[in-house]
Amino acid sequence: MKFNCSKESLMGALNIAQKAVSSKTTLPILEGILFSVENNNLLLRSTDLEIGIEINIPATVEQEGKIVLSSTITGELIRKMSGSEVFFESDNHNQMKISCLLSNFTLKGLATDEFPAFPEIIEDHIFSLESSVLRELIRGTLFSVATNENIPVLTGVKIELEGNKINLIALDGYRLALRSGNIKENMEDDLSVIIPSKSLSEINKVLANYTGEVVVKFSKNQIFFEMDNTQFTSRLLEGDFINYKQIIPVEKTTQVRINRRLLLESSERAALLAREGKNNLIKMDFNQDQLILTSNADIGDVYEVIPIVNTGESLKIAFNSKFLIDALRVIDGEEFIMDMTTSVGPGVLLPVEGTDFVYLILPVRVAEED
Amino acid sequence: MKFNCSKESLMGALNIAQKAVSSKTTLPILEGILFSVENNNLLLRSTDLEIGIEINIPATVEQEGKIVLSSTITGELIRKMSGSEVFFESDNHNQMKISCLLSNFTLKGLATDEFPAFPEIIEDHIFSLESSVLRELIRGTLFSVATNENIPVLTGVKIELEGNKINLIALDGYRLALRSGNIKENMEDDLSVIIPSKSLSEINKVLANYTGEVVVKFSKNQIFFEMDNTQFTSRLLEGDFINYKQIIPVEKTTQVRINRRLLLESSERAALLAREGKNNLIKMDFNQDQLILTSNADIGDVYEVIPIVNTGESLKIAFNSKFLIDALRVIDGEEFIMDMTTSVGPGVLLPVEGTDFVYLILPVRVAEED
Repeated sequence: MKFNCSKESLMGALNIAQKAVSSKTTLPILEGILFSVENNNLLLRSTDLEIGIEINIPATVEQEGKIVLSSTITGELIRKMSGSEVFFESDNHNQMKISCLLSNFTLKGLATDEFPAFPEIIEDHIFSLESSVLRELIRGTLFSVATNENIPVLTGVKIELEGNKINLIALDGYRLALRSGNIKENMEDDLSVIIPSKSLSEINKVLANYTGEVVVKFSKNQIFFEMDNTQFTSRLLEGDFINYKQIIPVEKTTQVRINRRLLLESSERAALLAREGKNNLIKMDFNQDQLILTSNADIGDVYEVIPIVNTGESLKIAFNSKFLIDALRVIDGEEFIMDMTTSVGPGVLLPVEGTDFVYLILPVRVAEED
Repeated sequence: MKFNCSKESLMGALNIAQKAVSSKTTLPILEGILFSVENNNLLLRSTDLEIGIEINIPATVEQEGKIVLSSTITGELIRKMSGSEVFFESDNHNQMKISCLLSNFTLKGLATDEFPAFPEIIEDHIFSLESSVLRELIRGTLFSVATNENIPVLTGVKIELEGNKINLIALDGYRLALRSGNIKENMEDDLSVIIPSKSLSEINKVLANYTGEVVVKFSKNQIFFEMDNTQFTSRLLEGDFINYKQIIPVEKTTQVRINRRLLLESSERAALLAREGKNNLIKMDFNQDQLILTSNADIGDVYEVIPIVNTGESLKIAFNSKFLIDALRVIDGEEFIMDMTTSVGPGVLLPVEGTDFVYLILPVRVAEED
């Protein structure tokens, strides 16, 4: 095989392909990236068996062929090359000669026979959405997945399609995050899949390199995201997700309207001491026109006052500050609504208008002090 | 004690004072920063018993006093405060009330009795130099100190003063770094001290916040650096430094002139494979007009060609790539001179003009291949 390509395009492509290369695999072939050239195109492919990436860039191909090269060494070499065009030439023993200006490298490659094939796409259930919309949906839910594996499906994020609406849902037993957006098509059938959180986190990094449309496709147990010259695939999780709609309460006796930034900053300050106390507890006293936020620890205590509009009853309630802060960091808009019933019922964070998000947080029971 | 001050100035001062607070001290008082107010001045003081920092900022003082507050908690609280002015008020039990807009904190402080006093300065041997000059001298030598403690003085950097010249010297048994600059005074007596490398690394970070003049003073076994409102002190190392002047060879049979950037980039590429081979070895073949740089490892090999001007004999020699790269990264100027004698004698890197630096690197002996 013999080809040359732009150093800059190759570097960009390698940066993306490297996201699917596992650093701790027991299969040496998976430490590599597959290079395949034909028809003036260089295809890079990588996989850790959980996720996979394919990316195409233009190349001047003199002789077609394919080879697997070490991901880390090749990436670092190309990064440190001077010159704008990189030349590749391999012999029949998988020795790859890479040259650029006055530098010449010879790298041992591997044959491509054992490199896993990319899964086949079934052309059903195709839909598309804006890259920025998908990133926002992921950012708004990913942090809420379960970190322990007791219920495996809860380590993933559920993707739900109804008509032209897409919902992402994550929950971990203490909190729930639901984020909604629009797709470009109107789905004939409802669809629901569960994606491992690690895959979503990686696709989110890949999406950061693209603007415009993402086309989503499926195979039997895989999901595909296509953007420009790149295709990202992930295994899906199997199993039944909890019926989350039953968890979100409909009644409320306390409904307050709060400035997001003020509550976030106050919660972050209170959390500094709450963290020292190791229980992460912040207490909230919702009066009619102000919220008093307190936190106590051995080293000291905090007392914060935030103006609110309460259209329901006064309420004292306590939350794990981390859960509250996680939600407040990803909520859009200057203000939001918080619905509650009692000090042992969940707090539900909603937008002032629309249905773009629901964040539900279970409270922490504290002993009555007075 | 009761005072208020600008949040921004306090944050800046805390960031600097925190550099002398040890995170792993067994003395709880050293996890704190001493706050002392009088005459509309707030003095912050911190120390880990090796280095110490004093910094002064303006404050509106209603009642004088002093207290020790937790460095991490106070720093994080002030950082997360909204509002531009912070108010402090303490009672007789070292409870410090800190407020800012709608936030109120109460922090437990400590009495200042056990906080170490700042060392006394003896007004001899005072000299001064530009902050930028001192930073350049430190950057150019610090990486060459010994990392093992076999010879304790070699874990420090020697500072030498002769007339209006200042030299910093570091050596670790495999390499030597000597960097020279000018001070503003003409010293009557020569002076020579050894500073622990960790202290120099910290003062270098503090210097990044200042332009202009640094005044250097001494006590019996301490050095002081004064900049604007800040004083930094460090313990000195005791013991005899190796007579480094004897180590630097005067004769040379090979003298080459090399482009710094070209050799650095080639060495970095070669080092990628050298690192894989775990010996870090790069071989250099100095011909009359070109340097051929090679490196071999199981995974592959490198062959780089760099144009040079050799006014001496041809020579094959091998170096640890790390030592070569470390020196090439801090050398000034487009080109430099490299003097050598044989394949077992040191390589000496010198400026094309002047005497600003000397970098000496011992070669690695390799079996003759042909």
